[in-house]
Amino acid sequence: MTAPSLPATFAEIHRLIESLPEADDAAAATARAREAQLTKPAGSLGRLEEIAEWMAAWQGRHPPTVDHPRVSVFAGNHGVVARGVSAYPAEVTRQMVANFIAGGAAVNQLCKVMDADLRVYEMALDQPTHDFTVEPAMSEEECVRAMAYGMMAVEPGVDLLCLGEMGIGNTAAAAALCLALFDGKAEDWTGPGTGVIGAALANKCRVVAAGVERHKAVRRDPLALLQCLGGQEIAALAGAIIAARLARVPVLLDGFVVGAAAAVLHVLKPGLLDHCLVAHCSAEPGHGKLCALLGKRPLVELGMRLGEGSGAALAIGIVKAAVACHTGMATFAEAGVSGKSGE
Amino acid sequence: MTAPSLPATFAEIHRLIESLPEADDAAAATARAREAQLTKPAGSLGRLEEIAEWMAAWQGRHPPTVDHPRVSVFAGNHGVVARGVSAYPAEVTRQMVANFIAGGAAVNQLCKVMDADLRVYEMALDQPTHDFTVEPAMSEEECVRAMAYGMMAVEPGVDLLCLGEMGIGNTAAAAALCLALFDGKAEDWTGPGTGVIGAALANKCRVVAAGVERHKAVRRDPLALLQCLGGQEIAALAGAIIAARLARVPVLLDGFVVGAAAAVLHVLKPGLLDHCLVAHCSAEPGHGKLCALLGKRPLVELGMRLGEGSGAALAIGIVKAAVACHTGMATFAEAGVSGKSGE
Repeated sequence: MTAPSLPATFAEIHRLIESLPEADDAAAATARAREAQLTKPAGSLGRLEEIAEWMAAWQGRHPPTVDHPRVSVFAGNHGVVARGVSAYPAEVTRQMVANFIAGGAAVNQLCKVMDADLRVYEMALDQPTHDFTVEPAMSEEECVRAMAYGMMAVEPGVDLLCLGEMGIGNTAAAAALCLALFDGKAEDWTGPGTGVIGAALANKCRVVAAGVERHKAVRRDPLALLQCLGGQEIAALAGAIIAARLARVPVLLDGFVVGAAAAVLHVLKPGLLDHCLVAHCSAEPGHGKLCALLGKRPLVELGMRLGEGSGAALAIGIVKAAVACHTGMATFAEAGVSGKSGE
Repeated sequence: MTAPSLPATFAEIHRLIESLPEADDAAAATARAREAQLTKPAGSLGRLEEIAEWMAAWQGRHPPTVDHPRVSVFAGNHGVVARGVSAYPAEVTRQMVANFIAGGAAVNQLCKVMDADLRVYEMALDQPTHDFTVEPAMSEEECVRAMAYGMMAVEPGVDLLCLGEMGIGNTAAAAALCLALFDGKAEDWTGPGTGVIGAALANKCRVVAAGVERHKAVRRDPLALLQCLGGQEIAALAGAIIAARLARVPVLLDGFVVGAAAAVLHVLKPGLLDHCLVAHCSAEPGHGKLCALLGKRPLVELGMRLGEGSGAALAIGIVKAAVACHTGMATFAEAGVSGKSGE
């Protein structure tokens, strides 16, 4: 693949999106044909069979591989934290980045278990976005630059990309994005995040509603909403999803914040997330509803709500299992196993 | 641990069950205390946190480990196959055992991905149980011998035991056991198994109902039901669950057939499955209902219905992830991460 020149405007992102590859039907058909010959009743591996076919379709080759899974975590800070939307102070974003680098966070342990590598991307943590209740979180230029930064994170050799994030205040930004993209009430999309409850949660709902109201003029323009309500790490996630499609790398989406970044693209162009699976259903209350609107059934539901790519990293094991069964199992003929009676 | 003498009668199994260890509350408390200090909002790893505590409680030590997970697959043949309850001929049991040994089955690939070892136990495949619509599937002696055989499968060093099975016809036996243990209609518990549909499924329901009716005299005696309606591999699974409790090895239960073996113990003595988790919810229709009756929420639900321990092997990744986060993460103090605002 020749690296595309990075976009500098929303118009260039729109053009880029029109040129993205579709699923490889031939690779998918080869996968389906092999599945039918493997030593098991048809369909008995359930979603593992679908995942193997999906991996072939989006990698554009058969057999698919999961030899180099990567977890990419984007970190950003949010001006809206000044409105009291988080249970933790903004400096925790940088402290957690240091924890990722030192190997002490949950995602580090999960990457070890899944034999995945981890990259952490700091998005100018000392320059938080603006408070979206007052002005756009970013300029168009800042938003596109963040998207382009996310695009560069898709490197050659990676065959499965797991996306995660860290950013004190970013569930408020994600809730505002979802509310603006899909309507409803602020309460439908606003949850505790790191642990906001009671009066603080009611305040968070008001902040989310105020942000969406403030930027209602761009309500029909997903990229403008990303700029006005999102964050640097959220824009980078959207960029990474686009770049992964271009590079034929299937994507595992983590929880609510990554889902909001993906939702921008879903609204922008139907099918733009077909190369993505939702790894897990977060306990953050908006995420289940968001998954339904994206038409995605999460792979696991374990009540996790940590972010930092933890759910996506966990789900690597399921994708590895699917690909290993698909590529490693014997066929009925190879194993000398009888087929169904009467066949 | 001194190896207990193996039981030879149901009475001895009853006595053995009275002597089984309970959860180690001190180890569980140590796990809870550590969880509260790790660099994440409280509860944000959801069920992973519960699993880590559960592992400590049942291994009886802190920290818990998943260094030597094992998948044990028991294979048996069933006289009731003569009644046309399976889509595959009985010789497939032996053929699939050969496939396990050759490394060509799904469970082999899953064990590789999860770095688990696999043991396959053949239960006299050339001596199927009797047809339970005519007579007890086994004598008490045969049933206890099969249970004792299963007990021997719990070997020193294993720190997580995944139980699976292979046996053409064994979803009929499992359905009969569940119907006898929990009541309902045969249709509630009888599913397609390897792929029985339409008139063949209606026949399978009739066979299940006839078996339960034939042995209604022992309806209140779980071990007698296991003897009359179960199978050698099902009895071995029940034995393995008991032996794992004795040896302080937590257990992951696979699908419907393993669940039926576990159900015998659940009815025999409440709490006897507290050291077991249900790994996945099988697509076999009776399994979801069975899990609810056992009070167990499956770890994953991916539409699998293969048996052979595949769902349990898949879930090893989740337990490894839980233990890795619990033992490997930094505390707030170690990482220099700020706590919640105002704390």
